[in-house]
Amino acid sequence: MRFFSDNAAPVHPRVIDAILAANGVDAAYDGDALSAALDSAFSDLFGRDVAALWVATGTAANALALAALCPPYGGVITHRDAHIQNDECGAPEFFTHGAKLLLAEGEGAKLSPEGVRAVADAIADDVHRVQPHALSITNATEYGLVYAPDEVAALGDFAKARGLGFHMDGARFANAVAHLGCDPAELTWRAGVDVLSFGFVKNGGMSAEALIFFDPELARAARYRRKRAGHLLSKGRYLAAQLLAMLEEDLWIANGRAANAAASRLAAAAGARLIHPVQANEIFLRVTPEAAAALRGKGFDFYDWGPGEARLVTSWHQSEADVALLADAIAAL
Amino acid sequence: MRFFSDNAAPVHPRVIDAILAANGVDAAYDGDALSAALDSAFSDLFGRDVAALWVATGTAANALALAALCPPYGGVITHRDAHIQNDECGAPEFFTHGAKLLLAEGEGAKLSPEGVRAVADAIADDVHRVQPHALSITNATEYGLVYAPDEVAALGDFAKARGLGFHMDGARFANAVAHLGCDPAELTWRAGVDVLSFGFVKNGGMSAEALIFFDPELARAARYRRKRAGHLLSKGRYLAAQLLAMLEEDLWIANGRAANAAASRLAAAAGARLIHPVQANEIFLRVTPEAAAALRGKGFDFYDWGPGEARLVTSWHQSEADVALLADAIAAL
Amino acid sequence: MRFFSDNAAPVHPRVIDAILAANGVDAAYDGDALSAALDSAFSDLFGRDVAALWVATGTAANALALAALCPPYGGVITHRDAHIQNDECGAPEFFTHGAKLLLAEGEGAKLSPEGVRAVADAIADDVHRVQPHALSITNATEYGLVYAPDEVAALGDFAKARGLGFHMDGARFANAVAHLGCDPAELTWRAGVDVLSFGFVKNGGMSAEALIFFDPELARAARYRRKRAGHLLSKGRYLAAQLLAMLEEDLWIANGRAANAAASRLAAAAGARLIHPVQANEIFLRVTPEAAAALRGKGFDFYDWGPGEARLVTSWHQSEADVALLADAIAAL
Amino acid sequence: MRFFSDNAAPVHPRVIDAILAANGVDAAYDGDALSAALDSAFSDLFGRDVAALWVATGTAANALALAALCPPYGGVITHRDAHIQNDECGAPEFFTHGAKLLLAEGEGAKLSPEGVRAVADAIADDVHRVQPHALSITNATEYGLVYAPDEVAALGDFAKARGLGFHMDGARFANAVAHLGCDPAELTWRAGVDVLSFGFVKNGGMSAEALIFFDPELARAARYRRKRAGHLLSKGRYLAAQLLAMLEEDLWIANGRAANAAASRLAAAAGARLIHPVQANEIFLRVTPEAAAALRGKGFDFYDWGPGEARLVTSWHQSEADVALLADAIAAL
Repeated sequence: MRFFSDNAAPVHPRVIDAILAANGVDAAYDGDALSAALDSAFSDLFGRDVAALWVATGTAANALALAALCPPYGGVITHRDAHIQNDECGAPEFFTHGAKLLLAEGEGAKLSPEGVRAVADAIADDVHRVQPHALSITNATEYGLVYAPDEVAALGDFAKARGLGFHMDGARFANAVAHLGCDPAELTWRAGVDVLSFGFVKNGGMSAEALIFFDPELARAARYRRKRAGHLLSKGRYLAAQLLAMLEEDLWIANGRAANAAASRLAAAAGARLIHPVQANEIFLRVTPEAAAALRGKGFDFYDWGPGEARLVTSWHQSEADVALLADAIAAL
Repeated sequence: MRFFSDNAAPVHPRVIDAILAANGVDAAYDGDALSAALDSAFSDLFGRDVAALWVATGTAANALALAALCPPYGGVITHRDAHIQNDECGAPEFFTHGAKLLLAEGEGAKLSPEGVRAVADAIADDVHRVQPHALSITNATEYGLVYAPDEVAALGDFAKARGLGFHMDGARFANAVAHLGCDPAELTWRAGVDVLSFGFVKNGGMSAEALIFFDPELARAARYRRKRAGHLLSKGRYLAAQLLAMLEEDLWIANGRAANAAASRLAAAAGARLIHPVQANEIFLRVTPEAAAALRGKGFDFYDWGPGEARLVTSWHQSEADVALLADAIAAL
Repeated sequence: MRFFSDNAAPVHPRVIDAILAANGVDAAYDGDALSAALDSAFSDLFGRDVAALWVATGTAANALALAALCPPYGGVITHRDAHIQNDECGAPEFFTHGAKLLLAEGEGAKLSPEGVRAVADAIADDVHRVQPHALSITNATEYGLVYAPDEVAALGDFAKARGLGFHMDGARFANAVAHLGCDPAELTWRAGVDVLSFGFVKNGGMSAEALIFFDPELARAARYRRKRAGHLLSKGRYLAAQLLAMLEEDLWIANGRAANAAASRLAAAAGARLIHPVQANEIFLRVTPEAAAALRGKGFDFYDWGPGEARLVTSWHQSEADVALLADAIAAL
Repeated sequence: MRFFSDNAAPVHPRVIDAILAANGVDAAYDGDALSAALDSAFSDLFGRDVAALWVATGTAANALALAALCPPYGGVITHRDAHIQNDECGAPEFFTHGAKLLLAEGEGAKLSPEGVRAVADAIADDVHRVQPHALSITNATEYGLVYAPDEVAALGDFAKARGLGFHMDGARFANAVAHLGCDPAELTWRAGVDVLSFGFVKNGGMSAEALIFFDPELARAARYRRKRAGHLLSKGRYLAAQLLAMLEEDLWIANGRAANAAASRLAAAAGARLIHPVQANEIFLRVTPEAAAALRGKGFDFYDWGPGEARLVTSWHQSEADVALLADAIAAL
């Protein structure tokens, strides 16, 4: 029973169907009707004109976003535990041509204006120091915490005051929105976000993420950067199809809710073992080696996060029976 | 009737089936059994140990290959009409961190040792000049010509003598092999090729190309570069599945043959209108604006290559009836 | 007797004096009074507000200029024989992070609007092609030809019409101005030039070139890029001193005139052997191997440019006696 | 009275003399006899074959060194307070094409094997994480501490065991050697150092640092990178002359001793105000705002390091009288 990664879940049947249907579409790169429909579909979702580009990975989405907001000689303030810092093998540095990640602190990989200000204020305004040009947060965070709209807006205000571009890594944006029950606009551009990496792969997609520019003008250069990075797939219609399928009838939110619900159930069973509050689809547990072995002995697979810590991730497709068994197993530890 | 691009053709049913079957596989990134099988499958095909990495585009494959062979301060000798020079928005420069493409001449986008030597010999051996470190050819070429094994070997000998890494852009490698009827090994590593971009997308795949390192040691750094470029898809199993399906029963050669056969039939009809010999699946025709309009009037879609020139491309899926109609239409011009 | 390179000439005594005087100045980097005086001194010279940065080499000046005008995914139209293309080991690619040089043709390394347009018009306006973002010319050119103000202005008009930044490599700007007898403003910003690499080292300086931004706003990022490239010398006062000394009483023009005069005298002697008109301080001669050997036998040192071609360069410090001897020797061939 | 920066001190008279003497040398770039003598002169100093390149700044020396040791997709372990991290505007990232600095802890900006190991061991060995490829230390450190040969060797052993290249930023290498009284070989290659940025500018030079490759083979690519970075000055003879003058009769050590002696005298006066032991030419003091104002009121200039902290730097040229006055003033606080 897999609680290892939401990437390991299958692709949702409606996404599969959309891919199959796209097999009849016949244009190259992003010249097809499906790709052409993305701007409009995401503009509807966000209630304003946006530019929406498909890319095949969240890492590419993040790195292209940062390249749009930060020059090579600049810096990006982000959390010490951010995915862009730790899990992308330097993709931000590659796409920005060497910009520096400036690391801020905060519980549960969550930033506050204070934490961000501490970093910014420590940097003298002279040419010897890499100056901050952008701010990047992850929602839901790498530890499964969710920024509420007002929390994002507070960071957005800070970014605006300091002239920083504002990026949101939304690899689990669906889980955040599902948790909050808010309008996606409230959580993004209304709160000052300039670019969103809108994740779909962890949430039932196969190979398509959306890179959303709330200022469509920013997308112009990004289209060249996407091609230059080898990310303009020659049969892009299969990616566009996935995104459109996920938007239809808010499948993306439904999937996020399903994953969150499974996580909540496990969280309730875990009680005091929880290291962080569970707001999305990740659960971090305190476990002894013996406890971890006991869970594995019952057939549960998960990630050893660090000494005495385990990470469990639920997906849109998590079997209710498996979740119930695991909840019981955790409670029984 | 589309003769515009092989990218516009649908995905082969056996590839679709493989993708659907992969939906039951449950590991992330390239940790799945399908991805793990690639080295072995391609080693069998090439008759020696190779490292095989999936990537989603030919541009990424080419650029990663060049980054493996050429340092940032070096140069890559290639043809003036090469795809890497003209059609990838500077991806080679991006992935190599600024290496320079050093442009050679040759009929039909095909290089000879003489053409390559002319470029290399014109570069003084001092620090003011970008020194060549690699050679890159395209087989079949951008004009649909095919290098035979001995032609590749002559270039390979030159590369070896000058200490150049040797890359082959095989976006239409299948068409070249189908045309030659040769062993893929003869056309690659036995002829001195170090890295091959082995194309599948134009040939019936959906989103997977193979990057083949004939020296597996070269692949070590490439795996980091792939991640860093955002090209390590989190559900890589769907890419690996495509490649394995294409290898099975040599589907890739069968598809190449089908496309070539359609092109040959059109070539026979075109006669003196042909600008280049037709050896793969591209046909370049001399056409007056009136002739082009006449063909379009009959429902044929194709690419205006330049003044008085048209490019037609056939795919694995080209309808025999359409080809017959187009052959007649061309003959009737 | 050296006619090999203007870089081999000594430093002018007034520049030496200025360096010695700077030894009493005591601030670091560009925080000294001499560095602070540059903007004003060059603004006076050009008759408008400019930002002037010292750098230690022409290559750094050129590359920083191009980085200011062209994004990593863009291209710079320049002459096939330009110094930035052939003699800087890829510095433009390094500083721009991989922008592409787009090569145009023209006699004597000189560009015309027609030559530039031919390059620009051949590039389809889509994401697959590197789009031109800048134009770079060299004045005087690599073959010693000089663009007059109206010739620069014609290129400036083209650049403006196409949205291209306009850079002038003025490694021998002094020789061009000395030849034309014009106002430096006419040859630069009034003709549409955005950034000038204003050379002093070949013209009697030791280690200081000036990078002139006619739009001072462009210099903001350039100051960070300069530091980041290791080009903010910690004792910049010795560079600023050189530039100020060269500007005083138009020493730079006097030096340019002296070098040009020596070249003119040699040109008169060379007659039909001249490959290009001599307008600055470079002379390109047709010489048989025997003739070249004869000149060398008489003690003259120069550069073998290619088969049957020799390049001679005169400096601000060329001895009149040596020039007379060489003129006689050439006439006697 | 300046205790602000050793960069503000004048150039040593013997260095000035050497520069003037070089005005009679007549070759371009590094083709002159002085530049050609560097390998031999530094090989003599270090007791083994080395390659020695002049560059104009310590930032360029450091960044070229790191580019020689770390690929773009790799990381460099260094101290959180290192100059390469905080004071070079991202030059390491620029020259390495985006390598990541991996920050370790240690008192007084000094690293230990334990501190380095903690960083290295926290990085999982997979493609998602930037892997360490190099280690960089500063000797003397940014806080004026000196690594002894055995301390360097312990780090060198760690580096070798983990396959890391080992760089020493020796902006104040002279001060370290003067403090230790050791053989420079003991402090560098015998302790495992691969590349040394050997500083001369802070120590009485004008514009020349030496980049020392203990494996001369590593210098081959570095020569191209130096040109490509615009750091091959066209009149390099004036830089080579500075370095040779500094080596003659160990002027560099004498200068280092002079600066250290001045610092020691101040340290003795400062007593409990010292934040770090004074081993080189930097003094960090605890001072109240009033105390700082009092010192400034007496005509002493220095750097406010942080709240309640002041940095004073002594140079080779510090007047004994000024030092005595400042010592008295500090003692009187």
